Amino acid sequence: MFHFSDLDFQMMSRAILLAKKGIYTTAPNPNVGCVIERDGIVVGEGFHHRAGEPHAEVHALRDAGERSIGATAYVTLEPCSHYGRTPPCAEGLIKAKVARVVCAMQDPNPKVAGRGIAMLREAGIEVEVGLLEADAQALNPAFIKRMQIGRPYVQLKMAASLDGQTALANGASQWITSPQSRQNVQAYRAKSCAILSTSKTVIDDNASLNVRWDDLPQDIQSTYDHSQLRQPVRVILDRQNHLTSNTEQLKLFNTPGKVLTVSDQGDIEPEINIDGQIDLNATFKALVESHHINHLWVEAGATLAKSLIEAELVDELILYLAPKLMGSDGRGLFGALGLESMNETHELTIQDVRQIGPDIRIVATLNKRNKKDK
Amino acid sequence: MFHFSDLDFQMMSRAILLAKKGIYTTAPNPNVGCVIERDGIVVGEGFHHRAGEPHAEVHALRDAGERSIGATAYVTLEPCSHYGRTPPCAEGLIKAKVARVVCAMQDPNPKVAGRGIAMLREAGIEVEVGLLEADAQALNPAFIKRMQIGRPYVQLKMAASLDGQTALANGASQWITSPQSRQNVQAYRAKSCAILSTSKTVIDDNASLNVRWDDLPQDIQSTYDHSQLRQPVRVILDRQNHLTSNTEQLKLFNTPGKVLTVSDQGDIEPEINIDGQIDLNATFKALVESHHINHLWVEAGATLAKSLIEAELVDELILYLAPKLMGSDGRGLFGALGLESMNETHELTIQDVRQIGPDIRIVATLNKRNKKDK
Repeated sequence: MFHFSDLDFQMMSRAILLAKKGIYTTAPNPNVGCVIERDGIVVGEGFHHRAGEPHAEVHALRDAGERSIGATAYVTLEPCSHYGRTPPCAEGLIKAKVARVVCAMQDPNPKVAGRGIAMLREAGIEVEVGLLEADAQALNPAFIKRMQIGRPYVQLKMAASLDGQTALANGASQWITSPQSRQNVQAYRAKSCAILSTSKTVIDDNASLNVRWDDLPQDIQSTYDHSQLRQPVRVILDRQNHLTSNTEQLKLFNTPGKVLTVSDQGDIEPEINIDGQIDLNATFKALVESHHINHLWVEAGATLAKSLIEAELVDELILYLAPKLMGSDGRGLFGALGLESMNETHELTIQDVRQIGPDIRIVATLNKRNKKDK
Repeated sequence: MFHFSDLDFQMMSRAILLAKKGIYTTAPNPNVGCVIERDGIVVGEGFHHRAGEPHAEVHALRDAGERSIGATAYVTLEPCSHYGRTPPCAEGLIKAKVARVVCAMQDPNPKVAGRGIAMLREAGIEVEVGLLEADAQALNPAFIKRMQIGRPYVQLKMAASLDGQTALANGASQWITSPQSRQNVQAYRAKSCAILSTSKTVIDDNASLNVRWDDLPQDIQSTYDHSQLRQPVRVILDRQNHLTSNTEQLKLFNTPGKVLTVSDQGDIEPEINIDGQIDLNATFKALVESHHINHLWVEAGATLAKSLIEAELVDELILYLAPKLMGSDGRGLFGALGLESMNETHELTIQDVRQIGPDIRIVATLNKRNKKDK
């Protein structure tokens, strides 16, 4: 076990805060922060801004200049060892003559994990790993999941009344939640790689499913410039090819940002399962492998929500509850699940509960189900 | 506007904390605390323990003894002016020769409000009113409502899955919420004057609806002695006289505490409304007028919940949500409300949200409905 000093904790905490500055811009790349410290003083710092631009270590080393000689570099993720769009960061740290590197975590890709560390050690640099590791992992759950198991991290957003209704019996639903909650949704969209929905939602609600700068919270607007606004890819499930004609009037196709349709006449050829539905598992695999999508934000109705829950593809449920009672004759969140015993219920773990304006936002992770529960 | 000093605020805060010590025992009497201060030092303090026992001022004056001469008395509620089971507290303060009395609020009964204050002023005592008034009101919402409009304060407790289901389609529901939530319910029961339910709940669940000392949270067990455990009155709606025969085996009648049945063969004669249902408004009026019940804790199913919501008789909804998804084919919280437009929904205001063990507890007050909404 390593015995990190107070200074080590301070510096890595600072690196983690720096990494967070990229949460709206780096996707599908990870959020990474770097601090260069010498004699107890920060001599350089940086974070990864967006894919294609320099890594955090490059910014920090540029900032430090010659002061990096004999310094300690704190990085929230193992420095890369491969030649990509940029030369490997491990090489940069060696050239800058740092004496010591502290990484919060190894590269999550099991095929490359440890290579950057090995490269540094071979050059005679002292390397320590694991400082504030859980915090560093929390920066990039989606990047880590893609690297480790080749699947996207899925956040399912839903909105309902306190009694779990998404619409009245006649379909009326605007608006259940408050402007503050809808603004909160914009911040989630802005962080995601891609927004998943269905052609039904796109057509029924004429939903644009994009990020609107003016709707972003003030704190985000002050974090980065309007010109840096990144539009997540919009992925629309369209098994019946509803989006191949009469689409000129749809906001989806008239707002900035890429659209990928999942249909046999669209961008991604779907696999159809024995129920005649799009195989979501196969689609998600394709999104990761062909489109580097690691973080999927889902906004759709009860039908897709139910399919995702039943296929155990949801990592997080983000549920906005409005302080209203609508009655059980309305439309429920997930439709019929056909459960016959209380030990068949889909169990979650609450991660966060807070008030958003007049509403409540619940963030909960889906528990892994035991085989016997299925 | 009064200009209270820092010392005034400190002393009244202390009086409010003292008042809270009685929340499990004073019903149907209000919670009241009193601090006697002289030369910046607390020379006496007390709170009301239970109906029939001395008021807060009596305890505090006994504690102060001769040190009350020339002191300031801080009381969370206007001292009483009438001869009841105890002599009026205003008289006690006059006899004790206090120089000044600060009350957080007037007596909420409009017929007597101000009389205690007048009695003190006539005796030459300086009196100020309104310090920390909102906090003092929050001590006794039910007592205040009974005094002001002759109706009980109604808390409706419900429990559901995150998607608003109280049972599966086949009726299975044990247990939706956690032991921690059920323990939390015990604390609410212990604070109430009376617990309202239906003969259906009593028979289907064989519910005892009493307070079990062993299930009370540790902090309550250490606040007062087991021997002081007060059982709320259990009020059971029983329009069809189900509780008149074969009741020997029901826990309701085999556990400590009084039971009042609302049925034409029971303790309270119900008024029957045009729908053939018990008129809840009339029953609540009877509970106040004949049984001094001011704080009603309701545990029942969707049918009673719906009736209470529709009759606008609910002050607070206490909703326990378990981290489970059960599907919309289960049983909903309030049954069909028959709403046809989003501006007909029953609106609430969230007062508190917190995690109770693995569950979430939401406390929300029901907003007054506009006539046009009905």
